[in-house]
Amino acid sequence: MDVTVAIDCMGGDRGAEVTVPAALEFLKSDPGVTLILVGLSEAIDAQLRQAGVKPGSRLQVRYTTEVVAMDEPPATALRNKKDSSMRVAVDLVKEGAANACVSAGNTGALMAIARFVLKTLPGVDRPAIASILPTLKGQACMLDLGANVDCTAEHLLQFGIMGSELVASLENKDRPTVGLLNIGQEDIKGNEVVKRAAELLRTSGLNFHGNVEGDDIYKGTTDVVVCDGFVGNVALKASEGVAQMFATYLRAEFNRNLLSRMSAFFALPVINALKRRLDHRRYNGATLLGLRGIIVKSHGSADVFAFGFAIRRAAEEARSAVLAHISARLASLQKSVA
Amino acid sequence: MDVTVAIDCMGGDRGAEVTVPAALEFLKSDPGVTLILVGLSEAIDAQLRQAGVKPGSRLQVRYTTEVVAMDEPPATALRNKKDSSMRVAVDLVKEGAANACVSAGNTGALMAIARFVLKTLPGVDRPAIASILPTLKGQACMLDLGANVDCTAEHLLQFGIMGSELVASLENKDRPTVGLLNIGQEDIKGNEVVKRAAELLRTSGLNFHGNVEGDDIYKGTTDVVVCDGFVGNVALKASEGVAQMFATYLRAEFNRNLLSRMSAFFALPVINALKRRLDHRRYNGATLLGLRGIIVKSHGSADVFAFGFAIRRAAEEARSAVLAHISARLASLQKSVA
Repeated sequence: MDVTVAIDCMGGDRGAEVTVPAALEFLKSDPGVTLILVGLSEAIDAQLRQAGVKPGSRLQVRYTTEVVAMDEPPATALRNKKDSSMRVAVDLVKEGAANACVSAGNTGALMAIARFVLKTLPGVDRPAIASILPTLKGQACMLDLGANVDCTAEHLLQFGIMGSELVASLENKDRPTVGLLNIGQEDIKGNEVVKRAAELLRTSGLNFHGNVEGDDIYKGTTDVVVCDGFVGNVALKASEGVAQMFATYLRAEFNRNLLSRMSAFFALPVINALKRRLDHRRYNGATLLGLRGIIVKSHGSADVFAFGFAIRRAAEEARSAVLAHISARLASLQKSVA
Repeated sequence: MDVTVAIDCMGGDRGAEVTVPAALEFLKSDPGVTLILVGLSEAIDAQLRQAGVKPGSRLQVRYTTEVVAMDEPPATALRNKKDSSMRVAVDLVKEGAANACVSAGNTGALMAIARFVLKTLPGVDRPAIASILPTLKGQACMLDLGANVDCTAEHLLQFGIMGSELVASLENKDRPTVGLLNIGQEDIKGNEVVKRAAELLRTSGLNFHGNVEGDDIYKGTTDVVVCDGFVGNVALKASEGVAQMFATYLRAEFNRNLLSRMSAFFALPVINALKRRLDHRRYNGATLLGLRGIIVKSHGSADVFAFGFAIRRAAEEARSAVLAHISARLASLQKSVA
C-alpha cells in the first residue's frame, strides 16, 4: 500500500543533518512510500545538495519559516509557531496530504500540537505514548510512557485497548495479551486506580492477563503493558540507565589490561551480535496513540540509523488500519456499556 | 563495636538451608558480631549438625514453633503467628536482646510485624523500604521500594531525610545529595505530590539536588533517590528485568556456535569481572527504614552468599547510629517548622 509520511526535518538534537539523510535512505528501502520533508529551506536544501538528490514525486519538500526549540514550552510552540516544521508536518496529516508524521522534536510540544490539530479519537480521553521494547520472547508494547502523569482507571482501560489494537494491527496477532503494571501479581496489590483498572480490563473483552511486575516487561509475559505515564516513564528510563551501566562496565572490563583487550578481540563478534539484538536504535519511534492521525515521536538524540526506524514505524502504522481498529473497539465497548 | 543480630532462619525460599550456613560463614568474618538463630529446632539443629558447629556465646539459638509462609497474608501472620521465627526475631530487637534483625521472609508480613512490634520513629508517618543499588559512580540508596503505594509530599520528605541519614551514617558522607524521582528535570514536571515534595525538600536543609529521572539512578547523579513505593518497586523490578535479559542474551550469543563458545573461553575473566561488579547478591538486604529498630529484609531467593550480605548490612547499620541520626534530624525539622 502506498503511503505518504511527513517528516519534521528540524526536530531532534541535530535536526536536518540526521532527518534528511535518514529519509533519503528510507526512500530507497521502501518503494511504496512518499516522503514530505518539512522545514527551513536552507537546512533541507543543504542536505539534499550534499546528497546530490533533487525533490521529485516520491520526495516532496514543504518549506517552513519556524522551528520549535527542544526546550520550548508546549503552550508557546502551539500558540506562536504556526509555521514551524512540527506544526506544518502535523497539519499535513490533518489535511490528508500525509498518512503519518514523524518528529524528533520536543515531546510536550508535539503532543500539544497533535492534540490541538488532530483531536482525539472518539472514546479516547487522552492520547498515550506507546513504544515497542525488546523482551526475552520478542517484543512488547508499553504505554503510557510519559504523556499523562495522573490517570484514572478508565484512562488505563483505554490505553489497554489502544495498545492491544496497535499490536494486533502491526504484528497480525489475533488477541494480544494485556498486562497491568503493578507491584505484585495478586489482585489486592497496588493503589485504588490500578485495582479498579484491573476490574475494567477484566470485563473489557481484551485478552487481559492480569497484573504484571516490572521484570515481566522484559520477560515478555504479555504483548502489551499498561501503566500511567509517570510510572512508565520512570521504568523506561531506569531500564535505559541499567543498560547503559551494563554496557559501560562491559567496555571498562574489556579495556582493563592487555589480556582483557586481547579477549575483546575474540569476543567482538559475540558482543556485536548482542548489540544488534538489543540496539535501542531499532526500537526508536514512539507512537502518540489515540489521535485522529498517526504521529511518531523519535528520540531527540536519534542518529540516521535510529531515525530511519521511526520513519519505518510511521509507514507501518499508516499501512495498518490501527486507528480504525481502535475506534471500532472503543465504539463496541461503549455500546456494551450503554 | 560489638553487635547482636537476630536471624529469622525460616524465611526465604529455602529457609534454614541458606540462612544458617550464611550465618556461620558471617560469624567467621566479623569477630565483633553475635548472632541469634531463630526458628524451628529441627531445621536449625540439622544445619548445625551438618556443619559440626555447636551454639556458644557468639552463636545463640532461640527455638520457635511457627513459621510465616511466604504467601501468608500479613494480617494473619501478625495475629496468629506469635511464636513464628519472624515475630520472635523482631521481638528480640524490641526487647534489646538484639541490635538488628534479618529476614528473607514475606515482605508484607515482616513490615506489618515490625510496625506493630517496634512502632515508627517520632516524626515518621510510614516506614519505607530502602535499598542500595550499584551506579556508574559507586552506589546509591533508593526508597521507597514498595512499602507505600500512595504517598503524600510529607512522606516523600521523610523518605529523603531517612535516606540521607542512612547514607551519611553508613558511608560517612557529610551531606549526601538527594534527588526526587520524576519524569523530567524541570520544576514544572510531574504530578502535584512530586511538585509539592520538591518544595518541601528544597527548604528541608537536606542537600537537595532537585528532580532526577529514571536513568539518573544508575548514572549515580545523587546519593539518595526518593520516590513512592509504587514507582520505586516498578523501577527496581524493571531494572532487574533488563539486567536478566542482558545476561540471558549474552549467554545465548556466547553459546551460539563453536567459534563463539571458544571466544567465551577467552572472555571468561572479563565476564566474571563484570558479574562480580554488578552481582545483585552483593546488594542484597533492604532496610525497613523509619522503625524504632533495625530490620533488614533479604531477597526471598537469596543464596548463602547473598544472605551473608544482608547480615552484613544489618550489622553495619547496628554499628552506625543511623536511627539516632534520623530522629535528631526529624526533631530539628519539626522545631524549625513549629
